[in-house]
Amino acid sequence: MMITQNIKRAVQINGNGIATIFNGRQQTWSQFQQRVASLAGALHNVGVQADDRVAILSLNSDRYLEYFYALPWAGAVMVPMNTRWSVDENIYALQDAGVEILFVDDHFLQQAQAIRQHTSQIKTFIYMGEGEKPAGMLGYEQLLRNSQPIPDAQRSDLDMVGIFYTGGTTGFPKGVMTTIKGFQYFAGLLLSQYGISADTRALHAAPMFHLADAYLNLPTTAAGATHVIIPSFEPQVALKNIAEHRVTHTLIVPTMIKMILESPLIDELDISSLRRIIYGAAPITENLIKEAMEKMANVTFTQSYGQSEAVAVTMLNPEDHDPTLGLLRSCGRAAPGVEIQIVDQKQNELPRGEIGEIMIRSPNCMLGYWKKPDQTAKALIDGAVLTGDVAYMDEKGYIFIQDRLKDMIITGGENVYSTEVENALSRHPAVADCAVIGLPDEKWGEIVHAVVILHPDKAVTEEELIVHCRSLIAAYKSPRGISFRMEPLPLSAAGKVMKLELRKEYG
Amino acid sequence: MMITQNIKRAVQINGNGIATIFNGRQQTWSQFQQRVASLAGALHNVGVQADDRVAILSLNSDRYLEYFYALPWAGAVMVPMNTRWSVDENIYALQDAGVEILFVDDHFLQQAQAIRQHTSQIKTFIYMGEGEKPAGMLGYEQLLRNSQPIPDAQRSDLDMVGIFYTGGTTGFPKGVMTTIKGFQYFAGLLLSQYGISADTRALHAAPMFHLADAYLNLPTTAAGATHVIIPSFEPQVALKNIAEHRVTHTLIVPTMIKMILESPLIDELDISSLRRIIYGAAPITENLIKEAMEKMANVTFTQSYGQSEAVAVTMLNPEDHDPTLGLLRSCGRAAPGVEIQIVDQKQNELPRGEIGEIMIRSPNCMLGYWKKPDQTAKALIDGAVLTGDVAYMDEKGYIFIQDRLKDMIITGGENVYSTEVENALSRHPAVADCAVIGLPDEKWGEIVHAVVILHPDKAVTEEELIVHCRSLIAAYKSPRGISFRMEPLPLSAAGKVMKLELRKEYG
Repeated sequence: MMITQNIKRAVQINGNGIATIFNGRQQTWSQFQQRVASLAGALHNVGVQADDRVAILSLNSDRYLEYFYALPWAGAVMVPMNTRWSVDENIYALQDAGVEILFVDDHFLQQAQAIRQHTSQIKTFIYMGEGEKPAGMLGYEQLLRNSQPIPDAQRSDLDMVGIFYTGGTTGFPKGVMTTIKGFQYFAGLLLSQYGISADTRALHAAPMFHLADAYLNLPTTAAGATHVIIPSFEPQVALKNIAEHRVTHTLIVPTMIKMILESPLIDELDISSLRRIIYGAAPITENLIKEAMEKMANVTFTQSYGQSEAVAVTMLNPEDHDPTLGLLRSCGRAAPGVEIQIVDQKQNELPRGEIGEIMIRSPNCMLGYWKKPDQTAKALIDGAVLTGDVAYMDEKGYIFIQDRLKDMIITGGENVYSTEVENALSRHPAVADCAVIGLPDEKWGEIVHAVVILHPDKAVTEEELIVHCRSLIAAYKSPRGISFRMEPLPLSAAGKVMKLELRKEYG
Repeated sequence: MMITQNIKRAVQINGNGIATIFNGRQQTWSQFQQRVASLAGALHNVGVQADDRVAILSLNSDRYLEYFYALPWAGAVMVPMNTRWSVDENIYALQDAGVEILFVDDHFLQQAQAIRQHTSQIKTFIYMGEGEKPAGMLGYEQLLRNSQPIPDAQRSDLDMVGIFYTGGTTGFPKGVMTTIKGFQYFAGLLLSQYGISADTRALHAAPMFHLADAYLNLPTTAAGATHVIIPSFEPQVALKNIAEHRVTHTLIVPTMIKMILESPLIDELDISSLRRIIYGAAPITENLIKEAMEKMANVTFTQSYGQSEAVAVTMLNPEDHDPTLGLLRSCGRAAPGVEIQIVDQKQNELPRGEIGEIMIRSPNCMLGYWKKPDQTAKALIDGAVLTGDVAYMDEKGYIFIQDRLKDMIITGGENVYSTEVENALSRHPAVADCAVIGLPDEKWGEIVHAVVILHPDKAVTEEELIVHCRSLIAAYKSPRGISFRMEPLPLSAAGKVMKLELRKEYG
């Protein structure tokens, strides 16, 4: 069970080295291991058993990283909640995963109280904030003080390390079951792919609940290097932390790159320590990556493509970013150990240059969707992940994504399934029919846009409908704009809404 | 099943790139994949089924590399025979592993005929030499021509990839069962640890039957780089190949480093392409590594310690080789993903600085010894390998080997178990008692030395006894020198021969 072994190795080779820097405090690897092993002990004390799911609803923090490693250390399964989801969405996921223990920080105390009001699912709340412990919750630091460190549970390769929730085409979130093995292989591989070594200082700017951030987290620990953590992404905060803590690596989404480039601090602060930016989770425009390379001339860039079902399976390496090569619109090539094929509808590989669906075989392919065998059977063919992304591969193995089969929008690095938004809209009594599409946006990549037909006798404003959606689903999923129309939605011969037509009409 | 996937990836990203250079010929990755998949098809055609063991007795060659990948591609298990073993030893291993198919090259045709005379174990000999196909054998190239490429068997993590025979304390060789998982993890990890990338040219100078060489082979294929292969180690041949093919990496044992340094060619040829030498398998003297660093100033060095039961689990990295650090007598620190502890006789971890046995948890720990549950139980404690090597670990995690618990000699990188040599000596009618020890040697690290007591009424010369041994066991295991004595061997209170005393007396 390597991901916990890596902590022990970090202590062995660099026990007095700095493991985490957060919020004005720091701890050594020896201290970090002590706290992880004690937190695992505390989890056993509150009744956690092997393979139990334990959730967290929190912004990034050093304690979040302790949770990340304490769960496998205790032999249990992490369930990181999306910090931008609505109460309803998170309750769905907590119930779906059968979670009875929830870690919560200051930022989400109110949501935790709302969860408590709506369901008795959660038996134990663990308060990991900085203030006074609220009534009816256990205190994180007190738990640690009262618990003995326990030995590492030594999880096995195919044990689940976590359930990571993503949106679903059916309108309901689905839990991606992730294995120890996938984490283990990539912890070792990414040392070379991302250039991570003992002197790395990795800034966790992306949310830790996202699997993408784990792919910076894992090799950083494997190298015995230093984690620099900020609660959430703010360009000024990120830049200040890079300058102050001499950060060398960070992993961010294109929207964040844009925000950093636009910050006045980029010219004021000394960020010369920064050596590598890893980006992904959403397509990047050629202009944006070129601007980033110009403005941060000492930084090298790696793009990784993937999805929760198979993370970081391609690499567009620094040398591929030479603009004269014409590869900036590619998401890179299969990472070592990963097999990627462009396939037809029967999963037969297509010749180079032909457009088909991306299929992935990788050590980190998900085990499946938690308790969703039907959806698993559609996404996982003989161990390979069918991505729903449409692409071609050139003669040198570079993959160029063309389209998505899934009716999904990627906004600021977050995936939004149109069905989820359409479901929310339909629950408003004035809505007769609707369709949700992504429209191109310079900052967010895409924004969520709704096309709505009202009942003839009813009325609602754009603002009212958006507020209605936000009461049901995460703000980032709710429409940014709404176009009302009178005529019916354009339908294909098979009776499906032709979203391509709508994107042309409203884009 | 990554080790075959890596071939497919090499074809995908670098299909026209050179995969192998050997004996004046070379082939691209596309050609290599075609031949590997066809060889796998040929194996199916001659009746090989899942998990069947198929052996090879051959010097290094491009075809050896094809065999290495065709076996897992076909879903079968490789059994590489030690090219220096006697006929008796190899027959023991072939029978032990239940092998019915043997690949053999020109160099070992005579031994193959001897094997055929002594046992009917082998049903099919496949001749992989360069000459005329001998009668009663299948021809390698003909098999390839007559077979269709088959799809990769997609082996799973805990499937056996090979059985690798090592000497045994009981006097009989034992087969180390190696998993796909171990190969998979290290193929990815070693890219960073050994600095291997797409432009690497790796020279296979160590014998390919050794697991150590696989640890250069695997990351080289994972990078889609180039294998340069020589039949066996000769310093002039190695140096000429480095110069001619612009080799960047090689993996050799200390004895080979010494032979390279002593070759006049080192000053005549341009070996400036060489960037990294990985060494291990035997202790190195401080003088030798210092001389190597001085004479090859552009080369960086990595030492890896391990044994067949858990290969390459430590790294003494290039920066650790700075002589002022005092680390040249260390074998390095645990590799990322590896947990190493110095333990007492009850496998409890000892404090830093205290001497105990090295215990290893690593993704590449063996599954066990083939059909030897009792010996497996002693060597594999709850998944961790007990090495029999005695060491201490300093405050920074560096491991310093002090002694061996196993009665074993390491000569020129090969392990020789004293029992095996003592058994051979005892079979001579003139020998009444004997003890085999390792004596220090500048070139070989250690040499095998025998202390012999003859029956009072019998006589035999040193030379006769050595010839006798060579008829039974490999030449490198046979004594280099023999000391005859009259008085009894020194015994401990428990009745065991005190070899430390003998080493002092005869060293």
